[in-house]
Amino acid sequence: MKKSMAHGVHCPMPKFDFDIVTLGHGSGGLLTHRLLNKIIFEALQNEYLAEAHDGAWLNMDGLVAYSTDSFVVSPIFFPGGNIGDLAVHGTVNDVAMCGAIPEFLSLSFILEEGLLMTELWDILQSIKMACHDSGVQVVTGDTKVVEKGKGDKIFINTTGIGRMHPKAHIRMANIKKGDAILVNGNIATHGVTILSVREGLSFETSLESDSTSLNHLVAELLDEFGADIHFMRDPTRGGLASSLNEMASMSGHGIALKENNLPIVEEVEGACEMLGLDPMYIANEGIFIAVVEADKADAILQAMRRNEKGADAAIIGEVTEAHKGQVIMQAAVGGRRVVHMLAGEQLPRIC
Amino acid sequence: MKKSMAHGVHCPMPKFDFDIVTLGHGSGGLLTHRLLNKIIFEALQNEYLAEAHDGAWLNMDGLVAYSTDSFVVSPIFFPGGNIGDLAVHGTVNDVAMCGAIPEFLSLSFILEEGLLMTELWDILQSIKMACHDSGVQVVTGDTKVVEKGKGDKIFINTTGIGRMHPKAHIRMANIKKGDAILVNGNIATHGVTILSVREGLSFETSLESDSTSLNHLVAELLDEFGADIHFMRDPTRGGLASSLNEMASMSGHGIALKENNLPIVEEVEGACEMLGLDPMYIANEGIFIAVVEADKADAILQAMRRNEKGADAAIIGEVTEAHKGQVIMQAAVGGRRVVHMLAGEQLPRIC
Repeated sequence: MKKSMAHGVHCPMPKFDFDIVTLGHGSGGLLTHRLLNKIIFEALQNEYLAEAHDGAWLNMDGLVAYSTDSFVVSPIFFPGGNIGDLAVHGTVNDVAMCGAIPEFLSLSFILEEGLLMTELWDILQSIKMACHDSGVQVVTGDTKVVEKGKGDKIFINTTGIGRMHPKAHIRMANIKKGDAILVNGNIATHGVTILSVREGLSFETSLESDSTSLNHLVAELLDEFGADIHFMRDPTRGGLASSLNEMASMSGHGIALKENNLPIVEEVEGACEMLGLDPMYIANEGIFIAVVEADKADAILQAMRRNEKGADAAIIGEVTEAHKGQVIMQAAVGGRRVVHMLAGEQLPRIC
Repeated sequence: MKKSMAHGVHCPMPKFDFDIVTLGHGSGGLLTHRLLNKIIFEALQNEYLAEAHDGAWLNMDGLVAYSTDSFVVSPIFFPGGNIGDLAVHGTVNDVAMCGAIPEFLSLSFILEEGLLMTELWDILQSIKMACHDSGVQVVTGDTKVVEKGKGDKIFINTTGIGRMHPKAHIRMANIKKGDAILVNGNIATHGVTILSVREGLSFETSLESDSTSLNHLVAELLDEFGADIHFMRDPTRGGLASSLNEMASMSGHGIALKENNLPIVEEVEGACEMLGLDPMYIANEGIFIAVVEADKADAILQAMRRNEKGADAAIIGEVTEAHKGQVIMQAAVGGRRVVHMLAGEQLPRIC
């Protein structure tokens, strides 16, 4: 592979002497080295990984954000993505939600014996491309292998580090009465997409996961609006309802939503009705909530909409003094209801 | 729990409404919050986790080391430790091997549905105590749950960050002809201990894993000897043989070992003979290799031995111009042999 092709292109898998992952690939010996050198470093090559030390050396200054997530999504390939790019997007977005500019990732695999080497390669290619799109580099990693039946094909942990955006001041404590609440796009798409291809439940749809990295959009907003963006969070597991409830209970404010304003694509809404699911509880990827200064809300909305990742952005509600600690929904058909945090388990292994 | 009791003490488990981990504990909703607040944050409380954001904000300056490891050891409890303190020690040591002072950890769990809550608590207590001993803090985390049969009780990923020790200059490229090679203690103890309690293989021994954090010992050595320590590595999976081969092949030098000088406890040696295993290939924890300036080797050896974690330290060999890229052992009985990297799989899931 030429250096100029190292980014943003899905490369064919090099010739490799194993079709599947074996326990020996986790031994720390020769097979591990071959897997690293011929497959993993080949896909992700950069100056940091080339050091091949126990860790990476990074230059840092001032305040940095640091976040971790393990990804166990099932199935590992789904319309619009796979566990690899999801693992990059998820952590990139968590770092961005802190008001930081994601720069470096760690990448750790737990592989189940028998995983197809071609699947691992495809996942690595997606990781490479997602890193390229997000402008981050995998600088340190680890690969373990567990026996067949003791894992589920592949689990991925990523952690991310990034320097703070100079204009960011994101803190739960900055949320205040009157703030507007925005989302950058249609909710529940990721969760319903995963459901649509899950064994025993599959139904026909043209949906694709909207899993994507939000860091460039977030940086644009921070460039322009800085500290007028008080708080951000990406409502993944537990959906919009759970994230908004966390924000209400931790900030001590109330949150009032307008159901009419919630952006959702028709097909997702239809699938939710069919399955008896409330889209407020369905996991999102590629979606974030921004709590912003009220008199800047329209300008921020317009700025979001100028970016393709915010094309369907909407102002969905506001922070209130009333019903402190609670999320209240003004229903489309009139009337108000309390939106609780997700109580049980809705959709295991959605991310 | 009183704040003064937060460190270094094994606390009794608080009353909790579940005896086992359920899928709902990974939902991102109410059950996840209860697990976090009543169990995980309760065990690990600190100012960073109290923010409960998607990530932690850290103040960093200059060069930092960053490392990741996933831990899949089986069984999860073993003489001398468990997967929890192993996950702290492993990453703390990887950061220390970079010449850095570990400060912050991320902690990510993949739990199998059905894990006993008491086991999770005990693991958390061990994590807390290992963090206390190592002087590090868990600042961000994640918890996922997979269905019964799709994991194996608990997998843990930790990553670590630390500022460089001001006197450290650890690089593979610093290894040079004539350098002395030291280890801080007896080899193969961890691997043989895990084997001794593994299902289908258990044999009687009083052995305990030597899993421990090495960062304080490493910092002492760097304080005193600085750049005379050229390189360090902890030979975990693949054992001493694999790490030394990596060093030989990547540095382009030869390595000559004296079998007579290898520190090993009799019981470990006996178990290896019984099982037909070569201790050079068995995983270590609590052990590191230091490649040092030859004329400082004795002083460094004495300094190691003054610390209880280096009491059994030894000079095991030297870097040579001959047999470049290879590790050669001068056998106890005379004669020399090439020590290769571990070729297959010896002991799966040893860490």
